[in-house]
Amino acid sequence: MFDIRPIVLVVGILLVTLGIAMLLPALYDAAVSNPDWKVFLASAVVTSFFGVSMALMTWGSAGTMTLKQAFVLVPAVWVALVTFGALPFLFSELQLSITDAFFESMSGITTTGSTVISGLDTTPPGLLLWRSLLQWLGGIGIIVMAVSILPILQVGGMQMFKVEAFDTPEKVLPSAAALAGSITVVYVSFTVLAAIALWAAGMSFFDGINHAMTTIATGGYSTRDASVGAFDSGLIHYIITAGMIFGSLPFVLYIQALRGKASPLFRDTQVQTFIGIILVATAAMVTYQMLQQPGVDVEERLRASIFNVVSILTGTGYATEDYGSWGPFASIVFFTLMFIGGCSGSTSCGLKIFRVQVITAVALSHLRRMIYPHGVFIPKYNRRAIPENVSASVMSFFFLFIACFGTLALLLTFTGLDPVTALSAAATSIANVGPGLGAEVGPSGNFAGLPDAAKWLMSLGMLLGRLELFTVLILLSPVFWRS
Amino acid sequence: MFDIRPIVLVVGILLVTLGIAMLLPALYDAAVSNPDWKVFLASAVVTSFFGVSMALMTWGSAGTMTLKQAFVLVPAVWVALVTFGALPFLFSELQLSITDAFFESMSGITTTGSTVISGLDTTPPGLLLWRSLLQWLGGIGIIVMAVSILPILQVGGMQMFKVEAFDTPEKVLPSAAALAGSITVVYVSFTVLAAIALWAAGMSFFDGINHAMTTIATGGYSTRDASVGAFDSGLIHYIITAGMIFGSLPFVLYIQALRGKASPLFRDTQVQTFIGIILVATAAMVTYQMLQQPGVDVEERLRASIFNVVSILTGTGYATEDYGSWGPFASIVFFTLMFIGGCSGSTSCGLKIFRVQVITAVALSHLRRMIYPHGVFIPKYNRRAIPENVSASVMSFFFLFIACFGTLALLLTFTGLDPVTALSAAATSIANVGPGLGAEVGPSGNFAGLPDAAKWLMSLGMLLGRLELFTVLILLSPVFWRS
Repeated sequence: MFDIRPIVLVVGILLVTLGIAMLLPALYDAAVSNPDWKVFLASAVVTSFFGVSMALMTWGSAGTMTLKQAFVLVPAVWVALVTFGALPFLFSELQLSITDAFFESMSGITTTGSTVISGLDTTPPGLLLWRSLLQWLGGIGIIVMAVSILPILQVGGMQMFKVEAFDTPEKVLPSAAALAGSITVVYVSFTVLAAIALWAAGMSFFDGINHAMTTIATGGYSTRDASVGAFDSGLIHYIITAGMIFGSLPFVLYIQALRGKASPLFRDTQVQTFIGIILVATAAMVTYQMLQQPGVDVEERLRASIFNVVSILTGTGYATEDYGSWGPFASIVFFTLMFIGGCSGSTSCGLKIFRVQVITAVALSHLRRMIYPHGVFIPKYNRRAIPENVSASVMSFFFLFIACFGTLALLLTFTGLDPVTALSAAATSIANVGPGLGAEVGPSGNFAGLPDAAKWLMSLGMLLGRLELFTVLILLSPVFWRS
Repeated sequence: MFDIRPIVLVVGILLVTLGIAMLLPALYDAAVSNPDWKVFLASAVVTSFFGVSMALMTWGSAGTMTLKQAFVLVPAVWVALVTFGALPFLFSELQLSITDAFFESMSGITTTGSTVISGLDTTPPGLLLWRSLLQWLGGIGIIVMAVSILPILQVGGMQMFKVEAFDTPEKVLPSAAALAGSITVVYVSFTVLAAIALWAAGMSFFDGINHAMTTIATGGYSTRDASVGAFDSGLIHYIITAGMIFGSLPFVLYIQALRGKASPLFRDTQVQTFIGIILVATAAMVTYQMLQQPGVDVEERLRASIFNVVSILTGTGYATEDYGSWGPFASIVFFTLMFIGGCSGSTSCGLKIFRVQVITAVALSHLRRMIYPHGVFIPKYNRRAIPENVSASVMSFFFLFIACFGTLALLLTFTGLDPVTALSAAATSIANVGPGLGAEVGPSGNFAGLPDAAKWLMSLGMLLGRLELFTVLILLSPVFWRS
């Protein structure tokens, strides 16, 4: 018999946290006399009630967690939080359908940032705050998961990032709690700093808080229909650019830096490659636009280029303008950036920089071995040899990523989407980016008009992408349940 | 000093062969009193003159071939044959530009089948025959290369198909000649059989010969603007479907079958998977079209579906109708099939079935290892364990294939193509298929209208794809030249 008690316990505790978080928009709406405060209060009560019940039922009787339970835990937590997180959308004055509410909640918690709500400019502040909170909580959740659970589950090469304290599944929870503490301190501090900076740069207090949360979570929900483009300030664009980069670096390195070891942050090849990709892609975009339209304002193009490159690469998904109109070359660059993503152990998503590095290293060492059949060439990552099982994991992840992307695009066409919309909607959901390409799902579009079936498929894609594919797919394998 | 003499010798001998082949269209044009016979005769003389000179210069002084020379030989042969093969296009009454002539010749020899010639229905027969001959020679050439040279070069997992006689580079040429003999017998016999079958089914003698050659070469050049769609006969469509399948199976298995061991042909998992993919994709296409348009003629849809599925999967590129109009789901299925290709050691191209099998096996064994961290799971191909260096080769190939595809698509947008045309033109050239998607490069389009730069890029893509990427890319690596 599969013992679900430890899973129920963890889900329960996290639902209580979610319920408490719902009190914030309730308070805000009450303060500005918006009737939605009742919806938030009711949602908080329902969510906490379920959470407390689940925790009480299993408290004390739940033993330590096995590997198999950890595999079930990960998607169970995410689906439970998304479901309860959708309640405020469902019952608020927006009156979203069940599909739309679930989609918006999934897009929030997975830090994707695709939205079905049009008219953000007139949406009540409580709901805007709730969207930002979902992304903010999803962001911290994924970092904690990436540094604690995923390395033990050996998901797609994440075993390279095993922190020494966590070497057996039994130790996961206490150790995760310890590390989560440090990470939370960094995460909260930076959010506060970003909010102050944005406020100082001219945003309202409310806009500043919201954008600070969705920036560091590389989520991309905005309080405006025009996204960050609504704020006509170069300084704001640069602050958010810096914030998105901060959210996409390995958080473990910040903690090391705070403990006095700053050099890993600067010497880490993953960080260097990430910054390198940003610089090259930005330079390419600026040059391309200057060639296409001689006489453009270079600073303005530089700012728009780095902002949108970072936004898409990190999977944030803010837009300051429709990069789809920059030309076909730009469209394909952005389409490619979507897949890459940020660093491991950050809030960003996609293939991740370290996987691109591992695959490149393996391919290059293979090329060398073809030239010198008797030579020994060991692919390296961050100046260390890559163990054979890691390279196989990473390669499998890459293949599965492409396969899931293709399958999702294929299924989306069944719902009636045209090929470009289907391909870019599949990419943007699996890579948790936000906007895609084309009139409907592009940076100036909205997902509300998509068929319901497409929204459910995209929700599944977001979950798959956020949970590194394997943790969801493994539950579908008969071998897993046979053991 | 790098000794190019063995390379010059082999290129010379093959140019003489090409020159002799040019006499066939010369004879045909002379027989039907078409003035182009002079062009073919002159091209034959020039090509043979270069070939004989190169062979004479190096005859006797060229030693055995080293690994490094073999790597240079492969692209050198292909580029030389393409260049001389373009002469008749350049000087014929069609008066193609250098770009168009090179593109047409490259598309022929690589068995891609994209054409820049419009008005095939009125093109002189000598030129039509020359296009078919290029594909036919390219087809036999690639099989011989795949069973003799590529396994020794360890290209992208091809080392799994090393025939025992060929274990050192020094033995390549004599052994290749022996095996090439058997393969040529099978190849010629089947071409003759296919020509007779097509003629019996109602094609003219000339159309039958041409289509027989481009069918078994999985090339896809037709004598008609409407491609095979011009022949309104179910029997012809089924004969060509069977021929494309025949051309996409491993030729070594036919030779084993002829020697009395037929069971490997039926027990080979690569063959089984290939047939399985055809059946599933055809069933999906028939079902989709029946759902879209209830009341369609099922036999007619079945025939169109299996024909076009096989044509795109095997990289032949014939069309009986514009599958782009079947709907978005069909478009994405065809786009995916393009990448897959046929079996190793056949005339077809793309990733190849065995690579898809190896990648899937590695990914599945990784999934198992996640569930049982202490278990031992060995991925298998064709009931045998896959050596670690093979799986790394295959994974590297897959990554490089995707990377080359993306880069090519990106460069194509620079020439002004829209994203869909660029993506599908990149896919169709790297996978040596022929048609892409969209109005310009789709099955009912023509490549003549593309910018010259796009044609050169696509020519490079076809060469890369046909020569299994590594053999071209390795020449660009500094390590190769340093040794």
